[in-house]
Amino acid sequence: MDYEWIDGGVTAPQGFTASGIHCGIRKNRNKKDLALIMSDIPAFAAAVFTQNKVIGAPCIVTKRHLKDGMARAIICNSGIANTCAADGIEKAEAMCRLTADTLGILPDDVLVASTGVIGPSIDLRPIEKGMPKLAAALSKNGHSDAAHAIMTTDTVKKEFALKFELGGKICTLGAIAKGSGMIAPNMATMLCFVTTDAAINSSLLSEALAEVVSDTFNMVSVDRDTSTNDMVIVLANGAVGSSINCNKNDDYAKFVEALRALCIKICRALAADGEGATKLLECRVTGAKTKEDAMLAAKAVINSSLLKAAMFGADANWGRVLCALGYSDADLDVGGVAVSFLSAAGCVKVCQNGAGINFDERLAKAVLTQKEITISVTLQDGDESATAWGCDLTYDYVKINGDYRS
Amino acid sequence: MDYEWIDGGVTAPQGFTASGIHCGIRKNRNKKDLALIMSDIPAFAAAVFTQNKVIGAPCIVTKRHLKDGMARAIICNSGIANTCAADGIEKAEAMCRLTADTLGILPDDVLVASTGVIGPSIDLRPIEKGMPKLAAALSKNGHSDAAHAIMTTDTVKKEFALKFELGGKICTLGAIAKGSGMIAPNMATMLCFVTTDAAINSSLLSEALAEVVSDTFNMVSVDRDTSTNDMVIVLANGAVGSSINCNKNDDYAKFVEALRALCIKICRALAADGEGATKLLECRVTGAKTKEDAMLAAKAVINSSLLKAAMFGADANWGRVLCALGYSDADLDVGGVAVSFLSAAGCVKVCQNGAGINFDERLAKAVLTQKEITISVTLQDGDESATAWGCDLTYDYVKINGDYRS
Repeated sequence: MDYEWIDGGVTAPQGFTASGIHCGIRKNRNKKDLALIMSDIPAFAAAVFTQNKVIGAPCIVTKRHLKDGMARAIICNSGIANTCAADGIEKAEAMCRLTADTLGILPDDVLVASTGVIGPSIDLRPIEKGMPKLAAALSKNGHSDAAHAIMTTDTVKKEFALKFELGGKICTLGAIAKGSGMIAPNMATMLCFVTTDAAINSSLLSEALAEVVSDTFNMVSVDRDTSTNDMVIVLANGAVGSSINCNKNDDYAKFVEALRALCIKICRALAADGEGATKLLECRVTGAKTKEDAMLAAKAVINSSLLKAAMFGADANWGRVLCALGYSDADLDVGGVAVSFLSAAGCVKVCQNGAGINFDERLAKAVLTQKEITISVTLQDGDESATAWGCDLTYDYVKINGDYRS
Repeated sequence: MDYEWIDGGVTAPQGFTASGIHCGIRKNRNKKDLALIMSDIPAFAAAVFTQNKVIGAPCIVTKRHLKDGMARAIICNSGIANTCAADGIEKAEAMCRLTADTLGILPDDVLVASTGVIGPSIDLRPIEKGMPKLAAALSKNGHSDAAHAIMTTDTVKKEFALKFELGGKICTLGAIAKGSGMIAPNMATMLCFVTTDAAINSSLLSEALAEVVSDTFNMVSVDRDTSTNDMVIVLANGAVGSSINCNKNDDYAKFVEALRALCIKICRALAADGEGATKLLECRVTGAKTKEDAMLAAKAVINSSLLKAAMFGADANWGRVLCALGYSDADLDVGGVAVSFLSAAGCVKVCQNGAGINFDERLAKAVLTQKEITISVTLQDGDESATAWGCDLTYDYVKINGDYRS
């Protein structure tokens, strides 16, 4: 299937506007802290949420408001997670009400998300005060401000959009996301808001999202810490007029493929911007017995602190890869493992049949000093494969999280 | 039960000698790399091993030699793990043979362990050359040299001994251990060699060891990376003449209690000397529904990179504790969680009923700048409890593992 990357992020699809402002939740006046995404017309909506038992109040409220499968707007603040606060639900509902009142829509059509420090009660005053300005700023050009406003320790904004053909029409998918630390999504992810002008009903949209999330967001890990506020929302307003039937036809498959491409792009951006990261790591496992074995193996490698630190140091310490495969829950024959490191600088094979082989240390160093590194693991157990994304472990990860609350 | 900490490590019990030398496996002449522990008379022996599917050749050979439940000597090198090398088993058997020939005992009575880089084939020449010197150095004073010789990235040697009364006689337990990174023992641990002059047959010794390991070594984690060469060996030579009957009588309970005290001491030393660590972290979970829930919860907290970095920065970010409890596999009511931080400087309660409470930030800082910190988690789900040990995540962890092989 053909698709093309375009600018415009979350407002690239027809019928969506967005905005982002500094309202005062954060002390730093240069950091936007409140984002709004709005569909001109009612949109089908689907979402996945964190599986953490400690779940943010915004997740609970958004789940409630999604019961009818429809939504108009997403309000999101950064700075405070609104999690583990006694008045969390009440405050999250109030954020929806404030947004709805200002936009002249129903509170039930507003979805809410928050990201930041767990614990403190969120102060609604800056949000209330900033809402008129936020609503007035809604525009086709507001996508970048919205992307900035949801960032926490992210060092780069994450927004992407792509267009593709669907049922004879050109459809667009757009997204903004945040996430840098506390990333080990489990059936959901950090925050990601996807918009599309394709017409796809909410139950089919839910199915498409679940299908894509399992091998995209759920295969990213920065630090194995599953967030309490993870959320991926997709809004499909059908503004382009295309319609995907309720049965899983070719159009549905195309939509899923486009959504998958978008989500993989976001996953790579999230992993590359992992807290303190200097390198994007990708682990590709092939030849696994089952899909689950492939996923478990790829995740174990990407999660190994020892391997992550070795990649930071550009040290071809493949024993760390073998060790991680060995303690993963994957069913695999360690005697059949081959490992190669790949990057823009080349490819170096370091292990075959579970044992080390002579390799060119100079080439290995060149391969591992690149910004994007693939750890290729070939098993001899079957035909299944999986890919996981992560990043290296650096001094800066420790620095950032040594004093996160200040 | 009374017991007393004494000096002498692994040679504190009667009938044991030890030695440690630099034989040349490592380039650095100032770092000892070969250790030997010897019992004057045949000893009952028991061991537990790593559950990593990638298992070091020395583990396989030691398991073979333990089939008769008896042993005389332990030979251990540092520098090379003898894992994932094609000739590993052969070399591990050769190490036992070289040791046996020099000591005039049977190869089957020698247990072997290795620790260091995974992958490279081990060179037997320095071991063969050094063996006469190593055997000649065996003495009651050699415990410290042996403890040094098994160290890798450890910054302090780990050796302990305690004496206690058993069946009217004074028995002694001694131990040396190594471990700093790649520590997340699973049914076994890094390397730990325990000696005792108590008389306890190998099947009862195995039972005692398994009982103790599950809530000592298996509750330590530095980086969630389970080593390929983990091994705990206990040698009981009965030199003191005490005998523990085959049924689980009071003497058995006493022995288990003494062994547990020794193992907890070692666990704390291992965690405190975790790679790059500046602080020992202990997580005590009480009020859990089941013992397993308590263990899962304590482990999740100790393993959280975000919490570990926060502890390094003395940041009372209790949201990290709640988050880790939430994604742990423990069955717990998050609404009933209370969290306190304790240390030599005092105790500060930061969370109650799953929500934050006002606390004295100045006191929290004072508590968290100590060297040993306890994270106390109180649940309202039952009566079970567990303790896990770990350490903070620091710049130096990254530094050490950025270039481990050189």
